[in-house]
Amino acid sequence: MFSLDSLRTEIETELQRLDYNRSPQTLYEPIDYSLSLGGKRIRPIMCLASCELFTDEYQKAMPAALALEMFHNFTLLHDDVMDKAELRRNKPTVCAQWNNNVAILSGDAMLIEAYKLLSQVDSPAFSLILNTFNQTAIEVCEGQQYDMDFEKTLSVSVDEYMEMIRLKTAVLLAASIKIGALIGGATDSEIQSLYRFGTEIGLSFQLQDDVLDTYGDEATFGKAIGGDIMDNKKTFLLVAALDKASSAQRQELVDWINAENPDRTKKINAVKKIYDKIGVRRDAEERINELSASALEILRSMEISAEGKRFLTDFATSLIKRTR
Amino acid sequence: MFSLDSLRTEIETELQRLDYNRSPQTLYEPIDYSLSLGGKRIRPIMCLASCELFTDEYQKAMPAALALEMFHNFTLLHDDVMDKAELRRNKPTVCAQWNNNVAILSGDAMLIEAYKLLSQVDSPAFSLILNTFNQTAIEVCEGQQYDMDFEKTLSVSVDEYMEMIRLKTAVLLAASIKIGALIGGATDSEIQSLYRFGTEIGLSFQLQDDVLDTYGDEATFGKAIGGDIMDNKKTFLLVAALDKASSAQRQELVDWINAENPDRTKKINAVKKIYDKIGVRRDAEERINELSASALEILRSMEISAEGKRFLTDFATSLIKRTR
Repeated sequence: MFSLDSLRTEIETELQRLDYNRSPQTLYEPIDYSLSLGGKRIRPIMCLASCELFTDEYQKAMPAALALEMFHNFTLLHDDVMDKAELRRNKPTVCAQWNNNVAILSGDAMLIEAYKLLSQVDSPAFSLILNTFNQTAIEVCEGQQYDMDFEKTLSVSVDEYMEMIRLKTAVLLAASIKIGALIGGATDSEIQSLYRFGTEIGLSFQLQDDVLDTYGDEATFGKAIGGDIMDNKKTFLLVAALDKASSAQRQELVDWINAENPDRTKKINAVKKIYDKIGVRRDAEERINELSASALEILRSMEISAEGKRFLTDFATSLIKRTR
Repeated sequence: MFSLDSLRTEIETELQRLDYNRSPQTLYEPIDYSLSLGGKRIRPIMCLASCELFTDEYQKAMPAALALEMFHNFTLLHDDVMDKAELRRNKPTVCAQWNNNVAILSGDAMLIEAYKLLSQVDSPAFSLILNTFNQTAIEVCEGQQYDMDFEKTLSVSVDEYMEMIRLKTAVLLAASIKIGALIGGATDSEIQSLYRFGTEIGLSFQLQDDVLDTYGDEATFGKAIGGDIMDNKKTFLLVAALDKASSAQRQELVDWINAENPDRTKKINAVKKIYDKIGVRRDAEERINELSASALEILRSMEISAEGKRFLTDFATSLIKRTR
């Protein structure tokens, strides 16, 4: 069938069926809240669609799809505590709406709930699925730690940055696809191809996120542009700029990074001007294009249904070409 | 064999063999640190000993035993952040030695590592073991949340308190025993008995902890006496005292709870005096005796080796009669 609308509806229905109207409320309410904030449901969609490539009974992957969405939301709760973030999807974060302790403990509960959901998967490949989930989960933590480590240094190479976003973002997307395929009964070689596809789409997705935060359209992006620049966040743009800058440009960047209470518009415009001179937006877009072309080529060369190929191609393209 | 010394040695050896000399160091170093702080290793010992009741190949339970110890240490990392604790086993806590973000993320990694270890268990009962672990893990979170909720109210009943410590402390001990027995191949009825044994020992253990914090000997207890009183912690003693106090005694207790910067010795002595008048130490000790007698009776009535019974009886007794 491969219908994005119906996959999304099924996922939302199942998420709502998870009943967190339990005691203690302080533990479970934030789980409901977090899941009800919406989001693109990219990971569960990928998991179900990937399963559907190999079997019509793609609902078999639903517990895993929900586990992946739950895990993703767990990371958001804890990341928001660590980043002191107050808004997420235009709503107060759990740490802002309640407090840090609630976000820590409800996050822990969500990680455990993710395992509970995953444990409902009925598949001869269960042990492989569990190992994939474990390995991915720990890699996501590694990625988040590298991201935090990078905040404290100016010497991050582009390769190190790419490895960080592979861990922090791409592996979970790749694992979603792999786990769906495992449940669907794919062969080892199909699983390897799909994992690579997912990784490359995940990398492109994150690079696109970096570009949008600086060059997106405020109205369609849905949040203020330039947040990463104001926070001195080590995005691809900043890392590549610091790497390729002349010594004068580098000094200018460092001055803006160290500026105390700089004027927002001035700082954003000045840094963007340096980015433009160095050409890092083009660098990012080249990488996005290369990675997504490679990902789509992997898909093209696979012997799977034309309908499935088209669905994954369209969905992946929509993620990368998105404007918000 | 049932040798406490050799079980402990085997556990320490296996914990040291877990290699966390990995990147990113900021993520993995605190795991090593936390595991190296020692502790009584009660949960893995219980898990291995329980397995040994049913098979000589008790080492089969080692990955589960390590998973349980890892899980326990994960809870300590996050609890210490939530409680702003600076010392644990006379050493700086991870949040004090590094910072809260490190303790949150390394804690997350430890929870995932616990699942990785558990996934190594090779047993026909694996699915039941995983479900037990999941259920226990979420109950421990519920217990921690109730504990935090209780800090904000004076109206906690003794029953509510007992349910809180069942969740926060007892179920993990009970699950350790249950999982060991599952791996050993115990029958359903044996598993139920051992789970009840573990729960009652766990409850006694926590009540004893409450008593020691107020009435222990400073030298043998290894930390300052009266910490719970100073922190207004809702221990069994305080909950039972508030429950049974005359209105004058209750007012006196509430005044001490609300006192700002009270003199340490004065507050501790005054509160102990109220406790003694109301007789809550005796109440606690009666419960400890009832629970441990009931636990040991469960064990006595089981058809397991005399050597195994003796080992578990001695080990459980040492936990409850401990002075530190």
